[in-house]
Amino acid sequence: METMYDVIIVGSGPAGLAAAIYAARAKLKMLVLEKAPMSGGQIINTYEVDNYPGIPQINGFDLAVKFREHCEKLGAEFLEGEAVSFELEGEIKKVILDDNRQFQTKTIILAMGTIWRKLGVPGEDTFAGKGISYCATCDGAFFKNKTVAVVGGGDVAAEDAIFLARLCKKVYLIHRRGELRAAKVLVEALKTFPNVELLFHKTVEEIIGEEIVTQVKLKNLLEDKTEELAVDGIFIAVGSLPDTKAFQGVLSMDDNGYLEAEEDCKTNVAGVFAAGDVRTKILRQVVTAAADGATAITGVEHYLNGR
Amino acid sequence: METMYDVIIVGSGPAGLAAAIYAARAKLKMLVLEKAPMSGGQIINTYEVDNYPGIPQINGFDLAVKFREHCEKLGAEFLEGEAVSFELEGEIKKVILDDNRQFQTKTIILAMGTIWRKLGVPGEDTFAGKGISYCATCDGAFFKNKTVAVVGGGDVAAEDAIFLARLCKKVYLIHRRGELRAAKVLVEALKTFPNVELLFHKTVEEIIGEEIVTQVKLKNLLEDKTEELAVDGIFIAVGSLPDTKAFQGVLSMDDNGYLEAEEDCKTNVAGVFAAGDVRTKILRQVVTAAADGATAITGVEHYLNGR
Repeated sequence: METMYDVIIVGSGPAGLAAAIYAARAKLKMLVLEKAPMSGGQIINTYEVDNYPGIPQINGFDLAVKFREHCEKLGAEFLEGEAVSFELEGEIKKVILDDNRQFQTKTIILAMGTIWRKLGVPGEDTFAGKGISYCATCDGAFFKNKTVAVVGGGDVAAEDAIFLARLCKKVYLIHRRGELRAAKVLVEALKTFPNVELLFHKTVEEIIGEEIVTQVKLKNLLEDKTEELAVDGIFIAVGSLPDTKAFQGVLSMDDNGYLEAEEDCKTNVAGVFAAGDVRTKILRQVVTAAADGATAITGVEHYLNGR
Repeated sequence: METMYDVIIVGSGPAGLAAAIYAARAKLKMLVLEKAPMSGGQIINTYEVDNYPGIPQINGFDLAVKFREHCEKLGAEFLEGEAVSFELEGEIKKVILDDNRQFQTKTIILAMGTIWRKLGVPGEDTFAGKGISYCATCDGAFFKNKTVAVVGGGDVAAEDAIFLARLCKKVYLIHRRGELRAAKVLVEALKTFPNVELLFHKTVEEIIGEEIVTQVKLKNLLEDKTEELAVDGIFIAVGSLPDTKAFQGVLSMDDNGYLEAEEDCKTNVAGVFAAGDVRTKILRQVVTAAADGATAITGVEHYLNGR
């Protein structure tokens, strides 16, 4: 006799943990699956979170611990394990782990988050959290009056550069092509900041530092030569990757693999919800992911109540 | 020479305060207007909040203080004053206070929240926060294994009763009519709980207690007599009232007066955003309001960048 869960939550970043809090308070029979040895998702690697309202200037790791402890206080049930395949259609849904354990559930919340796309250059792992950031909105404020570089050419890179230009002494925007892919209005807005310098036809070859980042080595693609640029920080804005391959052909997703779901977190399959960074979403932040977790559980309750 | 703000935030509950945090971090020229002598909105009167992820079991007042302190640490600018009229259309928007002070701004975030509709009976003010709650999702967990009454006949009342039935020893649902207005599926779901008792054709005449609520006096509308019912708590679910009269004819709103805005918080007027409980929204909670504040500021930044 297998346990039939009301809800299985896949992933325990801010969205999954918030869902667990709401599920526990609603007395749902629940299980949270997390493949990593610790909860928190991307914030674990954020050296300081200062935009989760009510908890200023906290280390990302510590914030993750606070969320997890909150869940455990309420009796949320956790299991370390990697969900690798899913049977989502039908009233009884199945989650299968990499060690072949299977779980049955009436509803499922997918909250696996995304992984920032890396440059894949030397120094990138060494200085992670030591001057390298993948999120200007998250970390920009720590580089006030400093010199930073943004890498990328899309909307996010341009907006990051604008965001940083208001704070920083100098912002270099490094892009491998001769013009930005970003929306024209953004490109024009960028040009109004005298402290922004566009470096085109250049790629980052290496990130260099001692305790923290001190410079980046750039390759000039037109002249095939390298140069070094002194910076206090580097913001990598070359996209993020939701790992949603397991759902292809079953759940609707956009071209980037984000699961299509509106504010109600409902996917195209009844009883299946996408919460947090993994869904199509305007702003990916701790607080917006946490809100999704709460909203998704409301959706679960409505679904279980037959609405 | 008047100051031209990038954004004026009206209201400083969780939505307004989260917006203030994001505005401050984005270095926007900002002002938060709050008519009450203290920030926090409805949560000030919530005796315990246990579903704001990361901060378990906190008094609502203390949570409000944490949010406000977070804002002040980041240099957010506050002003006590009641905004009574607005000029929203056009590039330069105006906010006029009850003492005739005027402020100019490029964008505005409306985050005035709602007020729970009260029964208007004796005892309701006396026992506010002492056994009387207007939000089962917020406060239900504090009545575990106790006897409670829910007042109301709509979807929210029915869902509150279902939510509470999973936690409480006994749930009375008190409604003045002979059947619920709530969705059939909810009514059917309600009937599956043996600990739920429907009390039709009855209204609450008075809420009685000593330190905390001990009973409610009911009027039987069919027989025109009164009776007393022993309860540990009473959940009043007769709706909430957004105070949006000032925006009639300018901003789109639903039949209940909620400002029409999706997850992006955009109203029908460019540069005007609605965040938190005041907008049309699935789930009204501290965390979802705070998420709105963050999202609205992203909308403000896009708007200021010409997108």
